[in-house]
Amino acid sequence: MFDDVRTIVAELHGELTGHGLVAWTSGNVSARVPGKDLLVIKPSGVRYSDLTAGAMVVCDLHGEVVEGEWSPSSDTAAHAYVYRHMPEIGGIVHTHSPYASAWAACGEPIPCVLTAMADEFGGEIPVGPFALIGGDDIGRGVVATLRGSRSPAVLMRNHGVFAVGRTPAAAVKAAVMCEDVARTTHLARQLGTPRPIPGEDVHRLHDRYRRAYGQPPA
Amino acid sequence: MFDDVRTIVAELHGELTGHGLVAWTSGNVSARVPGKDLLVIKPSGVRYSDLTAGAMVVCDLHGEVVEGEWSPSSDTAAHAYVYRHMPEIGGIVHTHSPYASAWAACGEPIPCVLTAMADEFGGEIPVGPFALIGGDDIGRGVVATLRGSRSPAVLMRNHGVFAVGRTPAAAVKAAVMCEDVARTTHLARQLGTPRPIPGEDVHRLHDRYRRAYGQPPA
Amino acid sequence: MFDDVRTIVAELHGELTGHGLVAWTSGNVSARVPGKDLLVIKPSGVRYSDLTAGAMVVCDLHGEVVEGEWSPSSDTAAHAYVYRHMPEIGGIVHTHSPYASAWAACGEPIPCVLTAMADEFGGEIPVGPFALIGGDDIGRGVVATLRGSRSPAVLMRNHGVFAVGRTPAAAVKAAVMCEDVARTTHLARQLGTPRPIPGEDVHRLHDRYRRAYGQPPA
Amino acid sequence: MFDDVRTIVAELHGELTGHGLVAWTSGNVSARVPGKDLLVIKPSGVRYSDLTAGAMVVCDLHGEVVEGEWSPSSDTAAHAYVYRHMPEIGGIVHTHSPYASAWAACGEPIPCVLTAMADEFGGEIPVGPFALIGGDDIGRGVVATLRGSRSPAVLMRNHGVFAVGRTPAAAVKAAVMCEDVARTTHLARQLGTPRPIPGEDVHRLHDRYRRAYGQPPA
Repeated sequence: MFDDVRTIVAELHGELTGHGLVAWTSGNVSARVPGKDLLVIKPSGVRYSDLTAGAMVVCDLHGEVVEGEWSPSSDTAAHAYVYRHMPEIGGIVHTHSPYASAWAACGEPIPCVLTAMADEFGGEIPVGPFALIGGDDIGRGVVATLRGSRSPAVLMRNHGVFAVGRTPAAAVKAAVMCEDVARTTHLARQLGTPRPIPGEDVHRLHDRYRRAYGQPPA
Repeated sequence: MFDDVRTIVAELHGELTGHGLVAWTSGNVSARVPGKDLLVIKPSGVRYSDLTAGAMVVCDLHGEVVEGEWSPSSDTAAHAYVYRHMPEIGGIVHTHSPYASAWAACGEPIPCVLTAMADEFGGEIPVGPFALIGGDDIGRGVVATLRGSRSPAVLMRNHGVFAVGRTPAAAVKAAVMCEDVARTTHLARQLGTPRPIPGEDVHRLHDRYRRAYGQPPA
Repeated sequence: MFDDVRTIVAELHGELTGHGLVAWTSGNVSARVPGKDLLVIKPSGVRYSDLTAGAMVVCDLHGEVVEGEWSPSSDTAAHAYVYRHMPEIGGIVHTHSPYASAWAACGEPIPCVLTAMADEFGGEIPVGPFALIGGDDIGRGVVATLRGSRSPAVLMRNHGVFAVGRTPAAAVKAAVMCEDVARTTHLARQLGTPRPIPGEDVHRLHDRYRRAYGQPPA
Repeated sequence: MFDDVRTIVAELHGELTGHGLVAWTSGNVSARVPGKDLLVIKPSGVRYSDLTAGAMVVCDLHGEVVEGEWSPSSDTAAHAYVYRHMPEIGGIVHTHSPYASAWAACGEPIPCVLTAMADEFGGEIPVGPFALIGGDDIGRGVVATLRGSRSPAVLMRNHGVFAVGRTPAAAVKAAVMCEDVARTTHLARQLGTPRPIPGEDVHRLHDRYRRAYGQPPA
């Protein structure tokens, strides 16, 4: 079932390793199955080099396995919560990418000091609560934090990044850009005092980016 | 039209990814078409792995598309402005490379504390103004800053790098070296107090490098 | 003899280079030969690109060569000591991975400020004593430190990492994750004050990870 | 002439790029031709991907070209000076590797806080004088500094690394290890106060490493 979605999810994990966002097995991508109350996610503890489309796990939106040979990611409950509560979201990525997780360990949002952040995140990247894995706590923290922000990524305190998008590829892009700006802003903080971009310029940049960047819809 | 220039521009984007200067789609290379009031540039929002010579966009020097299937880079207006006002320039590179952008976020020029900087940049790498994308503001800031300096690269405040050269390959080299010296000087600042090179030695190094480095003209 | 173990040990060295844990020849993997008082280890000073299964050295648990064309790693005595005193351990990895070795050079344990550390290490990663190579001093320091901790990795002061596991692959995973969390916690310390995870939450995370992460036993 | 030496020198440049020691064309390897007053060195300004054995340049020990189609490295005078004054040296590497060059920009020797440094360098890595390129000044500074040290590498102030060895491969190893320890010690300095290794332990480690590491001579 759902071979196309499985293939997309399996292949997008290659972006996590290629961009240095994950170590060993510590990150995952999921996708909502279009038109169904189902998601496709990485199996737990399986190395990225062993991920095939057939190894992906299909779950319902409460995290129960519907189809798959393997146990799903231990983060499945968090992904499922987000899909239940954010119907506009079609893909989710979770990583412990190093610079973003450093901000998360300090409980500090990433300040908007780069035009690329204004473009992609519409302002700072916010911090969500500390939450234990296993129930709805992480998902609830992700959703609550994202709802108070224009950012498609949230830094979960002492943990790492959850990034969302209308498609799984958009969520991967948000996770990649989150680490990129987390690194540049970290380097800027080491150097001196990065200058914030005035709020109205952040708005202008974000609005223009959403309207004018990339190719027009086909 | 202009297949050679398209091929060069498409291939030079591989240097941006290979040297770690760009994330996702956030940087671009352009070239002036020799003898014409035209430029060739990356299409907007297209991933580096999908760039072919045929995907490059030909624009006039006001950024209007002359030939190409895709919308051009959202930075085209800035490139076009530079080509209009600096006739000696044949190539331009724009990146958000992380160490250089950290200096840009702090609004600090990179001080000349390395002989390699004296060689390539003839002194510090200067900071240009904060400018919004879309009109002539970025291009005007790039040109004004480069005219006051021997450096082929400028750090646009809260944004990133614009690097220029007589050829697109020379502009790519300037962008690569800009990030390289931005990193080493950042590391030196973390360690202690990097010692400036006396101005007259900077001049000697720069003059010698321009005269004697590399292979004699064919 | 023991071709399977030799093959595993030779191949696991590729994880050390692939994850950036080693420079030139400065790290090694060993495995206990199941059911025998023997270990298999890297030859001394041989580059990773030249490691074949046949180049691995078989030693007894006092570090004496039993079979092999090459001299064994100069760290063999330390590995052998650990196998003699920790019968549950089936694999050992030694590296000078950069972030972890920076903590070791400062003689500071890595504090548990990340859920991934609670998961994998069950708390902080401890520091072992400064010890000279060649006799039992390093092995003794490794064993004494690991016995006082739930961590499968120890930072030997002014030296580097020893990581252990029930299998050599598990030891490699511990070495990879040790560098990963050493980096993120280092970055967090540069940024501000990373917040410790309360001890009881560390226990809950570690217990759950050991019980529920990954695939159930076949 | 000297095809074997040319091949070795050309191939060793791949170690510089593979270990991240160089950007664009900013580093070089040379070898003494055994039994001759000649050296083989990289051509100036040629990219690493274009280096073939045939492109290497043969010079005498005053830097004059004896054979080759290309102009030799602009650092040839420095290499030649070292070969003239250190007859035991068979290979030299010059880089601007980032962490080592950061120490050089600050004019600080790298302190011996790692057993790997005691092993390879026998103590701190010393700083040589600021010197302009083109005459004997750089070579003189390299030789004077190396003679006062057991280290096979020197940090030339505001410039970069010169590393030497009995063979060109040994010089490459010294350059790789220099950057490796420059990075770890830099990270340790950011973290806190790295603890020096007592001088007598440095001696013991260095002596043992020279006697016992690696494979016995054939």
